[in-house]
Amino acid sequence: MAIIVEKYGGTSVGSIERITAVADKVARSHEAGDQMVVVVSAMSGETNRLLGLANEIDPEASARENDVLVSTGEQVTIALLCMALHKIGQKAKSYTGGQAMILTDTAHGRARIRSIDNSRMMKDLNDGNIIVVAGFQGTDEEGNITTLGRGGSDTTAVALAAALKAGECRIYTDVDGVYTADPRIVPDARRLDKITFEEMLELSSLGTKVLQIRSVEFAGKYRVPLRVLSSFEEGPGTLISYEEDAQMESAVISGIAHNTDEAKLTITGVPDHPGVAHQILGGISAQNINIDMIIQNVGEDDTTDFTFTVPRTDFEAARRTLERVSNELGARGVRGDDAIAKVSVCGVGMRSHTGVADTMFGALAEEGINIQMISTSEIKISVVIDDKYTELAVRALHKAFELDKA
Amino acid sequence: MAIIVEKYGGTSVGSIERITAVADKVARSHEAGDQMVVVVSAMSGETNRLLGLANEIDPEASARENDVLVSTGEQVTIALLCMALHKIGQKAKSYTGGQAMILTDTAHGRARIRSIDNSRMMKDLNDGNIIVVAGFQGTDEEGNITTLGRGGSDTTAVALAAALKAGECRIYTDVDGVYTADPRIVPDARRLDKITFEEMLELSSLGTKVLQIRSVEFAGKYRVPLRVLSSFEEGPGTLISYEEDAQMESAVISGIAHNTDEAKLTITGVPDHPGVAHQILGGISAQNINIDMIIQNVGEDDTTDFTFTVPRTDFEAARRTLERVSNELGARGVRGDDAIAKVSVCGVGMRSHTGVADTMFGALAEEGINIQMISTSEIKISVVIDDKYTELAVRALHKAFELDKA
Repeated sequence: MAIIVEKYGGTSVGSIERITAVADKVARSHEAGDQMVVVVSAMSGETNRLLGLANEIDPEASARENDVLVSTGEQVTIALLCMALHKIGQKAKSYTGGQAMILTDTAHGRARIRSIDNSRMMKDLNDGNIIVVAGFQGTDEEGNITTLGRGGSDTTAVALAAALKAGECRIYTDVDGVYTADPRIVPDARRLDKITFEEMLELSSLGTKVLQIRSVEFAGKYRVPLRVLSSFEEGPGTLISYEEDAQMESAVISGIAHNTDEAKLTITGVPDHPGVAHQILGGISAQNINIDMIIQNVGEDDTTDFTFTVPRTDFEAARRTLERVSNELGARGVRGDDAIAKVSVCGVGMRSHTGVADTMFGALAEEGINIQMISTSEIKISVVIDDKYTELAVRALHKAFELDKA
Repeated sequence: MAIIVEKYGGTSVGSIERITAVADKVARSHEAGDQMVVVVSAMSGETNRLLGLANEIDPEASARENDVLVSTGEQVTIALLCMALHKIGQKAKSYTGGQAMILTDTAHGRARIRSIDNSRMMKDLNDGNIIVVAGFQGTDEEGNITTLGRGGSDTTAVALAAALKAGECRIYTDVDGVYTADPRIVPDARRLDKITFEEMLELSSLGTKVLQIRSVEFAGKYRVPLRVLSSFEEGPGTLISYEEDAQMESAVISGIAHNTDEAKLTITGVPDHPGVAHQILGGISAQNINIDMIIQNVGEDDTTDFTFTVPRTDFEAARRTLERVSNELGARGVRGDDAIAKVSVCGVGMRSHTGVADTMFGALAEEGINIQMISTSEIKISVVIDDKYTELAVRALHKAFELDKA
């Protein structure tokens, strides 16, 4: 008898009918002999409805109160799912994030989980209960309600799986697995049966929106076997597991990811002396804005140029900060562009194969797509391009790496 | 500088526009120098929307999960009101029932407040915050979310006023005070400037829906001056205070209350021996059903008849229990009627005046209204009648006691 954590997203619990279907699915797993922990999101549309109310009052509403507001979405779902489970004769008990003792830091709207005390849940599981936990939320040390940010329900599920030493964490979504590229863009993209944590991590962070990146980090760190599968169709989905198991069958490239959620900022003519990078990026980080790619070019005179990318939603805030920093440093100026896309090729096989970069840049050149920034890791290569070429680039790369062939 | 607790019901916070108006009102009081604690209900319609979702799944859904579900309604309002207060430059912080450390018993859906730890709130008040608390909810000792039942936000407000030693507790509603009778039934009903706790208690329990009865009990017990006033119009409302202050101006009768939320059950031919009342009513109480009026008649043989009233919503459950008890006792049978009304005259002046009952029964007789049950206390007389005569009875009594005259 293993503990299985299952997570159902907003679409999967988007109506009473669907909640009832989830209850049936969970009950079947429970009756098959597993101890079940179910993590749910808000019913689809609910979070946006709540944010809409907040927006009517103040588009820049307090992050603390925003968390109090939106956390009600998941709370509604846990109650309804428990009712549906009771209705079909199952013992079930709901937990808000706080009740599940999911302790987070105090970064409202983007909190990180610090620890989970599993004692209460273990007791209820051993009493035969199905446990239904509100995803995406926790409380800080003072009991303030926090949220993990959009998609945070995946993180909740994986963190619970780790805390409860679950046998598997199943993420039910509206897609039936991880694909070699977005099937909406590349019609002959293939579903992958297996993928390594490292690859999934790169794909997540690069914009394949199947899983939230932090959930994959967590899963990898705690070695929680993670399975992505569809809540609407039967099927094995994609198993995300340790590299050792998966590497054997790894192709050079597992998939092509793309991301149009970032924006690019450049500060030019910065006096080139030690500590200047810290001064530039420190101001941005202090606002809790994530910086993704960073490039520094040496300029002609004693100055240098910095370019970096930030989430598109933080573009204006980051630009304002950068303009202030630019004045302080006596730099030449600040340029920004929020119409960019990041396109990446990713695969553990890349380590032992040369020529990946060459194939990639060649395929893009052939389509006349200009590369604005390049960034590499051991298992991926990312480029920033004009976002109007996103689909064209993804399709060209999928073809160039022959990802349509099994 | 006094602490003032203000409570705004669902209609008063029923839209973003109204929430903004409440924020303005609260800010004015705060700027006038008082420390403000605001208790809010769910936006009007929200609780019913949530209950509707539960009902789609299971009309007899678990009380625990029901509390998890409906408590989100107030949580949405506290967040939105804080945002509105921030928007106009006020420091404000929201508290769920649990965060306000409102500890209740475990009777889900009808929980009672056991204690309130005010330390966190006092700290935030002294830091200059306006505190916004979710009404109608608390947590039990195990951290389960509980609700106080419909109208429980009034109770929350009064309990907070007591716990915080507030100077006044203001209940904002959609009426501008307590009237001598329901103005929708009696057009010349008058607003009372003052009324005693005792009278208000009777009027509340008898069906004047201005305040929830438990809030008045609380207020009387802890001597919290309570003011009922309109959230939509300016005006002094009705002050509910200690008898000593208010008795001077007391008329014989303060008001006429009516209530059509009860149902009547009769068990006939019960063997008349000690302990039988306990056997009959114990089964009902064990289900947490409130019993209001109780009448026992001595029968002709060695048997007796019991009649009592219960909330109409508990009628079927109580009837089933009573039928079981009837079989066990070998009673003759059970009769029930849920088409009844309770109409009452109430006033502290009644103590020192005779003839009130006579005037009451005479007025009803004149209209041909049959009295089914009678129950009296020191300051009220209640009768149960066929509910189709409710309005007729209220108007006849209002006239007979000359309540239209100041």
